Amino acid sequence: MTEPLFKKLCLIGLGLIGSSIARAARASRAVQEISALDASPQVLARVRELGIADDAGGDMERALKGADLVILCVPVGVIGAVAKTVAPYLETGAVLSDVGSVKGSVVAQIAPHVPHGVHFIPAHPLAGTEYSGPDAGFATLFQNRWCILTPARAGGDAVEATAEFWKRLGAKVETMTTEHHDLALAVTSHLPHLIAFNIVGTAAHLEQVTQSEVIKFSASGFRDFTRIAASDPTMWRDIFLNNREAVLEMLSRFNADLDALRSMIEKGDGQGLFDLFTRTRAIRRGIVEQGQDTAAPDFGRTH
Amino acid sequence: MTEPLFKKLCLIGLGLIGSSIARAARASRAVQEISALDASPQVLARVRELGIADDAGGDMERALKGADLVILCVPVGVIGAVAKTVAPYLETGAVLSDVGSVKGSVVAQIAPHVPHGVHFIPAHPLAGTEYSGPDAGFATLFQNRWCILTPARAGGDAVEATAEFWKRLGAKVETMTTEHHDLALAVTSHLPHLIAFNIVGTAAHLEQVTQSEVIKFSASGFRDFTRIAASDPTMWRDIFLNNREAVLEMLSRFNADLDALRSMIEKGDGQGLFDLFTRTRAIRRGIVEQGQDTAAPDFGRTH
Ligand SMILES: NC(=O)c1ccc[n+]([C@@H]2O[C@H](COP(=O)([O-])OP(=O)(O)OC[C@H]3O[C@@H](n4cnc5c(N)ncnc54)[C@H](OP(=O)(O)O)[C@@H]3O)[C@@H](O)[C@H]2O)c1
Ligand SMILES: NC(=O)c1ccc[n+]([C@@H]2O[C@H](COP(=O)([O-])OP(=O)(O)OC[C@H]3O[C@@H](n4cnc5c(N)ncnc54)[C@H](OP(=O)(O)O)[C@@H]3O)[C@@H](O)[C@H]2O)c1
Repeated sequence: MTEPLFKKLCLIGLGLIGSSIARAARASRAVQEISALDASPQVLARVRELGIADDAGGDMERALKGADLVILCVPVGVIGAVAKTVAPYLETGAVLSDVGSVKGSVVAQIAPHVPHGVHFIPAHPLAGTEYSGPDAGFATLFQNRWCILTPARAGGDAVEATAEFWKRLGAKVETMTTEHHDLALAVTSHLPHLIAFNIVGTAAHLEQVTQSEVIKFSASGFRDFTRIAASDPTMWRDIFLNNREAVLEMLSRFNADLDALRSMIEKGDGQGLFDLFTRTRAIRRGIVEQGQDTAAPDFGRTH
Repeated sequence: MTEPLFKKLCLIGLGLIGSSIARAARASRAVQEISALDASPQVLARVRELGIADDAGGDMERALKGADLVILCVPVGVIGAVAKTVAPYLETGAVLSDVGSVKGSVVAQIAPHVPHGVHFIPAHPLAGTEYSGPDAGFATLFQNRWCILTPARAGGDAVEATAEFWKRLGAKVETMTTEHHDLALAVTSHLPHLIAFNIVGTAAHLEQVTQSEVIKFSASGFRDFTRIAASDPTMWRDIFLNNREAVLEMLSRFNADLDALRSMIEKGDGQGLFDLFTRTRAIRRGIVEQGQDTAAPDFGRTH
């Protein structure tokens, strides 16, 4: 039998990510006991109904007592305030972690509140869906996904233990600097979301083509973008406000490339188009080969 | 028992779309007999192995003899040349149709070759996957998808019969002008593909983030774009070259909106971001409600 890695996990924010961690931690016996805190009494009531935590009563002192792993799973915009509130209850030797989608700003928000003797190990699991809240979570969300840790110093027992925890949940772990995380995620996550939000916005207010036509004919390509453009507005507002520089940097690269592509179309440069479209296929192949997406046609959609 | 709608269907180009029509037409008994022509002997050999046509011998005269429905399923760039080649064999009273993704240019290419007494009914089924060739096709591809007809004049027996044919294959049919088709598809299909090709291209040649990191961390959003960016380069080169004006028009809308979005991020306009991200969710809801995409999280992916 696998031994638990932590005695008591306290999750703060039981939405998609927090509730998935609760389910996965229990299913994998990564921890002995789970307590849950959330700003919303409805969320806590639902967590009790779902039975995914041992204690979801809402008493902060009790929830944090004896917790050797505390993970903040709240939106990036409030994470500093939440860290400040829980700091007085953190026990010496505990690991404090988070799952924020941006790391530079989150570290800047949290670090000042971390008490002496508490190990702050920032983390970001690269997994999610377009849904939110405790009902959207599931135990296998992190299977075969990457979880990035950005500790101030690599190595050490607390980093090791946090990495082991994520591996137990099915994830693969990589350690890097906060700066590199924010650049890498700007291109692999934030820019794609920005572009998706934008194109869906554009399509929604054209004069020549009605919104109802856009919806009807969306299976010809457009619908692929609407999934991530349906992601939580609060979460994404916070991400763009908190990773502004890296996002703007990647956006300017995207714009320069788009200018070049537009000029190929204007000039009728068929060979240039063909060459670009051939290069982009190779990236998809890499993603499928590395198990980061399905090879099934159309994502395996049934519609 | 449902009666066949046509005696003999001749398909020219047995790739993803042509071979799907063959399978669906047989499964639904939409036609009595199917013949197949293709520039590639390998494709015809594979069609014979798959047994999806009654005649895939490659003899043009025999394939077209008695055909009362002929559908061109070849890339848009060669469709005029193919129409010219088959024109002498078309029988009086037959329907000549196509499945080209662009309609203005395709009509201009084909119309001059249509013999007197042959009814030319351009069509475009809005269905596909990122794969190509006769093995990629399947009989249910058109189920619940739209097929757009752009006949020179609405109404008439040939238009009705073509519409019935597509309905028998599971599609819903709408009729419009070629110009409106090309604008509607520029926004629902061509612009999304352009943007996807571009962002995948951008991500593939950054200095600060390696291609291998982009692939590893792609599940955080990027991978959604790589599916359509893996579509056939020939097909997409032809689409952009043949629907240039409408694509450039939609691209300039997209760019203007993207400028506005960038300035919201620069100025830290959280409310503006939140409002846009809330509007874009509504479009996704419409698409799911109208059965044009699955409500399953993450497209129902298993990865
Ligand atoms: N979704 C993803 O794809 C994904 C992936 C990786 C990382 N993340 C990160 O994970 C974090 C949570 O995202 P999520 O998708 O799980 O969001 P979610 O489903 O909306 O869950 C967030 C939860 O935090 C609660 N909360 C909000 N403010 C709080 C506060 N001040 N104190 C305590 N609880 C509070 C929310 O309650 P209310 O319902 O009352 O607001 C909600 O229950 C974010 O930092 C996000 O960047 C998300
Ligand atoms: N894929 C989609 O999502 C989709 C959706 C709706 C409409 N369409 C339209 O459907 C048409 C076919 O697309 P597809 O996806 O089925 O492509 P595909 O899988 O590549 O099939 C095209 C077939 O046409 C053959 N061909 C090429 N040139 C020819 C010629 N001169 N004479 C006879 N056959 C020739 C090809 O042979 P080789 O293999 O030797 O090239 C291939 O077998 C295009 O006009 C496209 O715009 C595509």
